[in-house]
Amino acid sequence: MQFHHHGYVSGEPRVHEASGTGIDRPSELPDEMDVLIVGSGPAGMLLAAQMSQFPQVSTRLIERREGRLVLGQADGIQPRSVETFQAFGFAERIVAEAYNIAYMNFWGPDPGKPQNIIRTARTEDYAFKISEFPHLIVNQARVLDYFAEAAAYGPGRITPDYGVEFLGLTVHRDGEHPVEVRLRHTTGPRAGQERTIRAKYVVGSDGARSGVREAIGRKHVGAFAAHAWGVMDVLVNTDFPDWRTKCAINAEAGNILHIPREGGYLSRMYIDLGEVAEDDDHRVRQTPIDEVIRKANAILHPYSIDVKQVAWSSVYEVGHRVTDKFDDVDVGETHDPRVFLTGDACHTHSAKAGQGMNVSMQDGFNLGWKLGHVLTGLSPAELLSTYSAERQPVAQQLIDFDREWSSLMARKPEEISDPTELATFYLGTAEFPSGFMTQYGSSMVTAGAQHQSLAPGFPIGKRFKSVEVVRVGDGNVVHLGHHAKADGRWRVYAFADADGSALQDWSAWMSSADAPIARHTPPGADVDAVFDVKAIYPQSFEEIDITRVPPLFTPRTGPLELTDWEKVYASGPSAWTSADIFAERELTSDGVVVVVRPDQYVAAVLPLTATDELAAFFAGALLPQRVPAETPR
Amino acid sequence: MQFHHHGYVSGEPRVHEASGTGIDRPSELPDEMDVLIVGSGPAGMLLAAQMSQFPQVSTRLIERREGRLVLGQADGIQPRSVETFQAFGFAERIVAEAYNIAYMNFWGPDPGKPQNIIRTARTEDYAFKISEFPHLIVNQARVLDYFAEAAAYGPGRITPDYGVEFLGLTVHRDGEHPVEVRLRHTTGPRAGQERTIRAKYVVGSDGARSGVREAIGRKHVGAFAAHAWGVMDVLVNTDFPDWRTKCAINAEAGNILHIPREGGYLSRMYIDLGEVAEDDDHRVRQTPIDEVIRKANAILHPYSIDVKQVAWSSVYEVGHRVTDKFDDVDVGETHDPRVFLTGDACHTHSAKAGQGMNVSMQDGFNLGWKLGHVLTGLSPAELLSTYSAERQPVAQQLIDFDREWSSLMARKPEEISDPTELATFYLGTAEFPSGFMTQYGSSMVTAGAQHQSLAPGFPIGKRFKSVEVVRVGDGNVVHLGHHAKADGRWRVYAFADADGSALQDWSAWMSSADAPIARHTPPGADVDAVFDVKAIYPQSFEEIDITRVPPLFTPRTGPLELTDWEKVYASGPSAWTSADIFAERELTSDGVVVVVRPDQYVAAVLPLTATDELAAFFAGALLPQRVPAETPR
Repeated sequence: MQFHHHGYVSGEPRVHEASGTGIDRPSELPDEMDVLIVGSGPAGMLLAAQMSQFPQVSTRLIERREGRLVLGQADGIQPRSVETFQAFGFAERIVAEAYNIAYMNFWGPDPGKPQNIIRTARTEDYAFKISEFPHLIVNQARVLDYFAEAAAYGPGRITPDYGVEFLGLTVHRDGEHPVEVRLRHTTGPRAGQERTIRAKYVVGSDGARSGVREAIGRKHVGAFAAHAWGVMDVLVNTDFPDWRTKCAINAEAGNILHIPREGGYLSRMYIDLGEVAEDDDHRVRQTPIDEVIRKANAILHPYSIDVKQVAWSSVYEVGHRVTDKFDDVDVGETHDPRVFLTGDACHTHSAKAGQGMNVSMQDGFNLGWKLGHVLTGLSPAELLSTYSAERQPVAQQLIDFDREWSSLMARKPEEISDPTELATFYLGTAEFPSGFMTQYGSSMVTAGAQHQSLAPGFPIGKRFKSVEVVRVGDGNVVHLGHHAKADGRWRVYAFADADGSALQDWSAWMSSADAPIARHTPPGADVDAVFDVKAIYPQSFEEIDITRVPPLFTPRTGPLELTDWEKVYASGPSAWTSADIFAERELTSDGVVVVVRPDQYVAAVLPLTATDELAAFFAGALLPQRVPAETPR
Repeated sequence: MQFHHHGYVSGEPRVHEASGTGIDRPSELPDEMDVLIVGSGPAGMLLAAQMSQFPQVSTRLIERREGRLVLGQADGIQPRSVETFQAFGFAERIVAEAYNIAYMNFWGPDPGKPQNIIRTARTEDYAFKISEFPHLIVNQARVLDYFAEAAAYGPGRITPDYGVEFLGLTVHRDGEHPVEVRLRHTTGPRAGQERTIRAKYVVGSDGARSGVREAIGRKHVGAFAAHAWGVMDVLVNTDFPDWRTKCAINAEAGNILHIPREGGYLSRMYIDLGEVAEDDDHRVRQTPIDEVIRKANAILHPYSIDVKQVAWSSVYEVGHRVTDKFDDVDVGETHDPRVFLTGDACHTHSAKAGQGMNVSMQDGFNLGWKLGHVLTGLSPAELLSTYSAERQPVAQQLIDFDREWSSLMARKPEEISDPTELATFYLGTAEFPSGFMTQYGSSMVTAGAQHQSLAPGFPIGKRFKSVEVVRVGDGNVVHLGHHAKADGRWRVYAFADADGSALQDWSAWMSSADAPIARHTPPGADVDAVFDVKAIYPQSFEEIDITRVPPLFTPRTGPLELTDWEKVYASGPSAWTSADIFAERELTSDGVVVVVRPDQYVAAVLPLTATDELAAFFAGALLPQRVPAETPR
């Protein structure tokens, strides 16, 4: 964590200095704004936290509810999401309070006594092998609390406008604020009042029954399945030995997906309520909680649960729907998008793969920096078209995965020939539910794969997978990727060649008036305001004299123009780590440049000599900010 | 972290339910209270956080200042203190914001060019080898913020009474509230007003010029040394390559102890200002900051610092003083103590070993549970005499250590024959500055060492050194010691014998009406309200069926009488840990009981068969709470 950088900070260092629209931010919803976010779910709240890092942009978030969410529906947190929490500054806190999944166990009928269940397999959770972050279970309400804190602590000081309902919108094709939005206050002295506001952009994060989706005429494609599930968060006493372990239970009496929750006592159970008749017309949703508990006990036989408190419960049919496009631009139209859909507003599915909240958050992470870039003049408006292009296929993948997982989970024991099949599927597809399968295709913000062989361990289009390195300034072992905060900046990692000469040449070029820094950094801004450039040397850290590295890597920034000591790294192993980033990521010893987007996805892999290609890549993603001769300080 | 245990909790789980004096706690300082803490430094604030876990006790903390500390003096955090932060629930947060010491480097004159300094040694910091927690540097003000949060979040809802000054006290030898304290309001509408309040106990945490010490007539024994140091927290630009590494610099021009601070930019420098004349009369304290900076630059030659901001600075002479006794009872007096001294009020010394704040916090940790036990009727008042008996020798050790370290640091290069001597001393004594050398002698709360050989790795009287184990309920690897929160409870770890039969017998006895649980747990309280009893099995966790362990280890507690799943552990190694607690702590395969005090010090090591000894030990430390026949639920 870096601070004291604009002078000594006495208090909570997680609170940034307010700036731009964060200074004297109006407590009342104004009539005009740059970005209006509709809905305070995981996608909307992440987006608010991200926009708070662009304080020049005025952002408001409206939520119909009168205050914070009290009972959350979602609770599964992929390692990719914990990585994202790290970027927003609260990973260590949420890890400390969440349930950590170490194992997933499988239960099936006892062959000798099929009315009883027995444990058929134990599998170590995938997260341990796939990421430095764990796989967690924690109430969505707490995730939202932490994003709300990040939004309020950011320089934009964004807090939600609770008690405001979205009614409809019209996109005009002219004016500074072309989106006209009709709202209604739902609480407080103005309850019932309708009003119209205008925004440059509107983001619909308003859930499965999205009014924003409706307003732009997008259709949610898919169908409810004819299979119903009950879900309950319960405090119980039980003789079931895996009450605190995640389990899939396939009994003669039906199926349960059992998920322990944070705090040591609570668990969530998804209980299979079986096929639903064609003419049921959602009557299954009226199933009383006692019936769900009775069913759970039948499945758990010979074990049972004695329910002491039901914290939350619901009955639903499995639906799989995805919106065909996540913005308001139809095929053939040439204007740039003005309205976007995120989260459940554009993809809904069963909860049982623990994916929904995670994919929704990545929607917000993908969109946030793009809005920030366009609205601060860093990038052209066409950047915004990449949002739907990148996220719609991810949603489609999610629906496909979930459909397969749901139907596997809902099978009857007699349909199962191999009792370990479910476990095998679970482990075999681990990268998907971990959140690491997303790979964006080539675009103005993701380069081609011509030079991928220089760094096979950093696949272009996938998220930057961190490795421990040694910080040269103090010898501390740190995760290279964890320094990449959700601050809207691009990361440029320059991995040095063996003798450092190519790195020297590259850094001299990168510091020149022709290079992306000079071209795309706004006048008056710090030299690392847009590009956070770091060097990683293959030598041991003791061999690197930080006072002799190219000055690009020890820039002086902030009002005091203080040297930044945290941009120069050396590969392990060292006394405190066995990691060797050059070996683990198969980096060429000739040195290589790895460009990472503000949402942590690898954008380009280039040789140190490919300066023209690097300049061309950024010229495609970013606008020129000044006459070439002027270099940032 | 365990919660949802009294029903579902939606918000921040670190906030406990208010109870006792925490419900409708008066915002104004009342006229009577159980405990009055004077001063909001590290000892006083830890004590407030601890007392908040005893909400039946009314505790107030007065502080002359009108609000929180803005600039802290101390900044060195031993691993033992981080362990303590873990018990108070904020270790992961403070670790994320602190500077982590990986190395300590040593600099001396270049033999070829003695006016220049060169690096003579790099040493890996001791903390890595000695503890699972790091050695940190972070502003005392932040440590106090976190303890203030813990005090406010605890069931006692304790917040400091700022703007109230201690004037004096009189200890009467009769009445419920025998200590009469004279105070003055220093701010707000009542500024200047004097008043008298009465307390059962008063704790002087009011610093080196303690008024409480004065009031009870204790003398601070020792003297100022004739050696002066300047200290400054500065933001600089520099060509000194170790600006971000802790260093001891012994130059011809003098000495510097250099300590990087949190946030990546700030460092603290202790600069040797040399011998002080006998008749100086503290005039050295007027040394201007420019002179201190000039001296620093002379020592750093050929490097230099360009100071951009001085966040804080001071000049002081090294003093080493310790109070002969830390309470108000003189030798030969038979009454129980009513007034206690903690922290700088009873031990002052140089800051350079980074010890002061740490030892002060352990004063508070030692005293807090004892006050809580006596005031809630769990223990006899004589328990309070163990505070001074245990902590005064620790302070004396500290003074001795610091005197040696300070004089080593203040040597001239020509006095140093072996340039690695300082490094060798530093590493050779690592256990002391880590905070792990404290060993309390035998007393009513620390048993004798007759059975120490059953568990040589848990030395009686030293703090319980944690090891990773596997939680049977969910297969998670956790640190056994980290479950021991600062909640005022005793921990009883029952390490099982190989076939579990001795553990079975022990747990049957421990659940009986003769055993300490029945004898010392107040009627109506949860069975684990006083004793948190845990089992640790030598087998792999998969071999333990948690539904079949003795019911003592799966108690049902709280208003819902929910099963606690976090009291049964198995030894590693497992898929996620290489630790084996039985091997690492050399535990006998016959099983052993390890009793740990509420402040985390090992109180007793006993065979599973020594039930009479265990009962006798607790009968000496705790009062009987009910007729023997009645057992807690």
